[in-house]
Amino acid sequence: MEDKKDNIGGLYKPNKPKDGAKNMQGRSAVKAAALTSRAAIKRPSKASIAGRVFKNRYHSSNVSVKLVHLGGLNEIGKNMICVECCKDMFIIDCGMGFPDTDMLGVDVVLPDYSYVESNVEKLRGVVITHGHEDHIGGVPFFLKRFNVPVYGTRLTIGLIEEKLKEHGILRNAKLNVCAAGQIIKLGCMSVEMINVNHSIPDAVGFAIYTPAGVIVHTGDFKIDYTPIDGPVIDLARFAEIGRKGVMLLMTDSTNAEKPGHTISERQVGESFQKLFSKAQNRRIIIASFSSNIHRIQQVIDNAMKYERYVAVSGRSMENIVAKAIELGYLKVPDGIIVSMDALSKLPKEKIIIITTGSQGEQMSALSRMANGMHKSVVIDGEDFIIISASPIPGNEKLVSRVINNLMRLGAQVIYEKAYEIHTSGHACQNDIKTMLVLVKPKYYMPVHGEYRHLKANADIAISLGMPEKNVIIRDIGNVVELSSRGIQLKESVTAGCVFVDGLGVGDVGSVVLRDRKVLSQDGIIIITFVVDANSNQIIGGPNLISRGFVYVKESEALLSDIRNLVRKILIKQLEKNVRDYTTFKTKIKDELSGFVFKKTHRSPMILPIMMEV
Amino acid sequence: MEDKKDNIGGLYKPNKPKDGAKNMQGRSAVKAAALTSRAAIKRPSKASIAGRVFKNRYHSSNVSVKLVHLGGLNEIGKNMICVECCKDMFIIDCGMGFPDTDMLGVDVVLPDYSYVESNVEKLRGVVITHGHEDHIGGVPFFLKRFNVPVYGTRLTIGLIEEKLKEHGILRNAKLNVCAAGQIIKLGCMSVEMINVNHSIPDAVGFAIYTPAGVIVHTGDFKIDYTPIDGPVIDLARFAEIGRKGVMLLMTDSTNAEKPGHTISERQVGESFQKLFSKAQNRRIIIASFSSNIHRIQQVIDNAMKYERYVAVSGRSMENIVAKAIELGYLKVPDGIIVSMDALSKLPKEKIIIITTGSQGEQMSALSRMANGMHKSVVIDGEDFIIISASPIPGNEKLVSRVINNLMRLGAQVIYEKAYEIHTSGHACQNDIKTMLVLVKPKYYMPVHGEYRHLKANADIAISLGMPEKNVIIRDIGNVVELSSRGIQLKESVTAGCVFVDGLGVGDVGSVVLRDRKVLSQDGIIIITFVVDANSNQIIGGPNLISRGFVYVKESEALLSDIRNLVRKILIKQLEKNVRDYTTFKTKIKDELSGFVFKKTHRSPMILPIMMEV
Repeated sequence: MEDKKDNIGGLYKPNKPKDGAKNMQGRSAVKAAALTSRAAIKRPSKASIAGRVFKNRYHSSNVSVKLVHLGGLNEIGKNMICVECCKDMFIIDCGMGFPDTDMLGVDVVLPDYSYVESNVEKLRGVVITHGHEDHIGGVPFFLKRFNVPVYGTRLTIGLIEEKLKEHGILRNAKLNVCAAGQIIKLGCMSVEMINVNHSIPDAVGFAIYTPAGVIVHTGDFKIDYTPIDGPVIDLARFAEIGRKGVMLLMTDSTNAEKPGHTISERQVGESFQKLFSKAQNRRIIIASFSSNIHRIQQVIDNAMKYERYVAVSGRSMENIVAKAIELGYLKVPDGIIVSMDALSKLPKEKIIIITTGSQGEQMSALSRMANGMHKSVVIDGEDFIIISASPIPGNEKLVSRVINNLMRLGAQVIYEKAYEIHTSGHACQNDIKTMLVLVKPKYYMPVHGEYRHLKANADIAISLGMPEKNVIIRDIGNVVELSSRGIQLKESVTAGCVFVDGLGVGDVGSVVLRDRKVLSQDGIIIITFVVDANSNQIIGGPNLISRGFVYVKESEALLSDIRNLVRKILIKQLEKNVRDYTTFKTKIKDELSGFVFKKTHRSPMILPIMMEV
Repeated sequence: MEDKKDNIGGLYKPNKPKDGAKNMQGRSAVKAAALTSRAAIKRPSKASIAGRVFKNRYHSSNVSVKLVHLGGLNEIGKNMICVECCKDMFIIDCGMGFPDTDMLGVDVVLPDYSYVESNVEKLRGVVITHGHEDHIGGVPFFLKRFNVPVYGTRLTIGLIEEKLKEHGILRNAKLNVCAAGQIIKLGCMSVEMINVNHSIPDAVGFAIYTPAGVIVHTGDFKIDYTPIDGPVIDLARFAEIGRKGVMLLMTDSTNAEKPGHTISERQVGESFQKLFSKAQNRRIIIASFSSNIHRIQQVIDNAMKYERYVAVSGRSMENIVAKAIELGYLKVPDGIIVSMDALSKLPKEKIIIITTGSQGEQMSALSRMANGMHKSVVIDGEDFIIISASPIPGNEKLVSRVINNLMRLGAQVIYEKAYEIHTSGHACQNDIKTMLVLVKPKYYMPVHGEYRHLKANADIAISLGMPEKNVIIRDIGNVVELSSRGIQLKESVTAGCVFVDGLGVGDVGSVVLRDRKVLSQDGIIIITFVVDANSNQIIGGPNLISRGFVYVKESEALLSDIRNLVRKILIKQLEKNVRDYTTFKTKIKDELSGFVFKKTHRSPMILPIMMEV
């Protein structure tokens, strides 16, 4: 914030929205409004889009649009934005997050949906940018509560279908397949899907046409001039929309700290080619993100070139490859894919295994190979392994452990950055700059990232001359209101984390996590004793059981000291005629924790249990 | 291992040890042997060292030297090597490690000292390379069991003194201050200290003269041609020893994956200078490793230049700065260091705070500042914060959290690699090559690193033409025996981890950790009931208590189902006249865990407690 860069040399000049006939594609949207959910999708020609207006409504000074981010700000994952205008609301993305290390035992983190709940009558649907977990992982949980229409591109909807099938709720879901260029009418607002590049096919950004103005949301994107399949990001459309005046632009901040351009996916294929020839007569194993279908395509293309067969290991990889082939996103010549079982009949130099586990996940196929626990793959000196991914922050040690174990079995493991065996799906600084100068928004709001990423993204806009006051960094739950009068911050709403642990959604909260934390650090000491209600005598116990505290066999003296102390406290309390459980409990807890800490410098959970008979 | 590079173009030719008068400094070592511990240190002239021999013993084919690494191979930290020859043994370094994430509640990890215990009669002392925790952290624990002489340079011994003081065992310790160039006689072996560069002053490597040959151990090192204080690494001495024939070289593998040279510490000072001028009238806060005294010196030097006062925050930083000033390793002009309390009287542009917390440690001074919990520092937009360190693998998320929090308070935080605000203390590939061509050992053994680092280091030697069979990667507990006949692998000995948790050393093992793991993931369900021994009736309970399992208030139905199930099991068992606790316990555990998993997909620890009265 220190370098005030307001209007540096006028580099940055937002386009003003033009009135009248040249304004945005209001008409087609209005027309679509009459239709019901599935029918709400239309594909108007670019010309028809360009020539129409939201009459009387567009840019009305009385109308404002509200944005409430329920996830994805100041955090990585669980992306979700509510867009609200007049009596309508829709949701952009419905993601999940992965638990932090202090969220012990939690499997998945979801946004708190309270705000949606309290505005459910406005809810018109969910639009999805692409099929990554942090954008679609929450869909099944969300639809169980709010069964509204979901709109996404073909692959995205395909992946959502698989999720809903697992949760047993596919039958009643209202899924709508759209394509880039189409417009979805959601109450008084409409959303145009615009093709972008990313590390999964069929990703889109959105132009959101509201009575209060136009908002552009890139979603996760990169600019890839040489994509593997599908078109280059539709920069022309972003420019066209920008030229007509955009109120707010939201962009992906993941790589905003990184200078330059994000390298093309095609570069990775070239690296594969070099490495495959280096692998010679060894078996090739490639670990990657299962959703990176273009990466998998390049493995298959190179398998053809080097006359190898491809087998797939790991549940999520098998599922996605099957789905991608089914939907035509993966082009696989006949006979090139073989089952894992068939590998035993092939010579090693004819084999490529594509596998999960690039993040060192403990039960993944690659980890099982590294630990000698994979049912059909035994690693040895004839393996050439490529980890085609970077460790997500927090996973470094897990990945390192897998690399070490594979190497110790004799395999050659290629993992360094030097090889260009991975590229990000997120825009670096120059890509973000390109987007900014094309869309030329009045206001700019970095999304998808921790504070450091949002800040770095904000600084990019400021460095292009955008006034600092027009660049906004917000938190989840903040309400951002946009109208022709500008941008306003309203009172915040409920937002946060809901934990999924096993089948439970929301039944693990701060109390449970605090207990798990204490239990994980120093274990538990349980004291049980039986008191005769008539005689007021201890007729059983005190017994002492500990778990996760000390190695019992070697700490008998300590445990016996603790038992004696409890006995003393009990007798003293009973002599005083204290019989109320709470007093007992507090007394034992206090004295015992002091004693235990003095003796061990540990603070186990102390749980006195009195049974009265 | 795939590229066989034996003798590539003869690039790599080890020097053969020369016999007779020109051989190594045997005499001075033999002479010193007669002296007792403290007196065993002599500083012979280089000439006298060069011209003498171990008569009849050196390179005798009957004599072998054994190396047993008890830590530091296939792991980062807890470095410790036993060097054994004839009836003598000494220890190189006595480090500690930090717990992995699965070592729940563990504070510190030590090597298993069993092998030392079973050879205690041979133990002549401990020689230390430098004062980092992974090399000296275990000293207090070790000396409590084996109070032998410890040899190290002045700063190293100074830091060990502080540790022993804390443990209350300084009085009886036999600490010996040595200097580079000195030789320590340890039974039939002797150790010469050779100055190296590292991220703490006064670091040394060792030439180890044994009746079976010469071993060189670099310790942690880098080659810094422009060190801040003290000499450049004594490459000439390494070369001199190499010219006379070295049997085995062990080098630091930490950075063996990184190409090129490690940048000089002085470069960081230049970055500080640029950043300090950029900080203008803001307060500067610099977080770094407390042991990096040269880094702190550069902060102080730049403080002088920019006319700022320096205050120190964080216990370990305060202690080390005090010790370094006391011993003359830190040159501080009068009046430049002020107390934290005095800062309130100074304008912000006159302040630099040096602080701990560069790894995001939760209770460190920087973390407390970031969380608004520091007692005297409140962070705001007038703070310019430099994190002069790289996150150690595994700490990325902690560091990121601190950066985010500091930025959200408005501070500018400098942390990227782009600024050259940190350099490693470990040799990169070219530095290792330099060491290899100077020492020209017959055998090469990478140490200090995970397998991937050891392998990368081994590959460096092989790339220089060293025969693959002479490059050895070993694990802790492996016994490596060297003699004139070559290198041999003997049966392995006990080696592993001993956990320190609070005051307990070794009372937390795999059973306790397994329990902590289960407790941390899904908590515990405790079932208590009282049985009347005469009537065989349940007269109390069953009661159910859970911790860390579910949020009880919202899961009453589930808990009541569990209670009913237990009651049913109990009644059935009692009807069958089963009274044996183990049968009860097993029955309840089995049925309950199945039921709970079905209902919740969680596996809490289930602990049935029967009280008989």
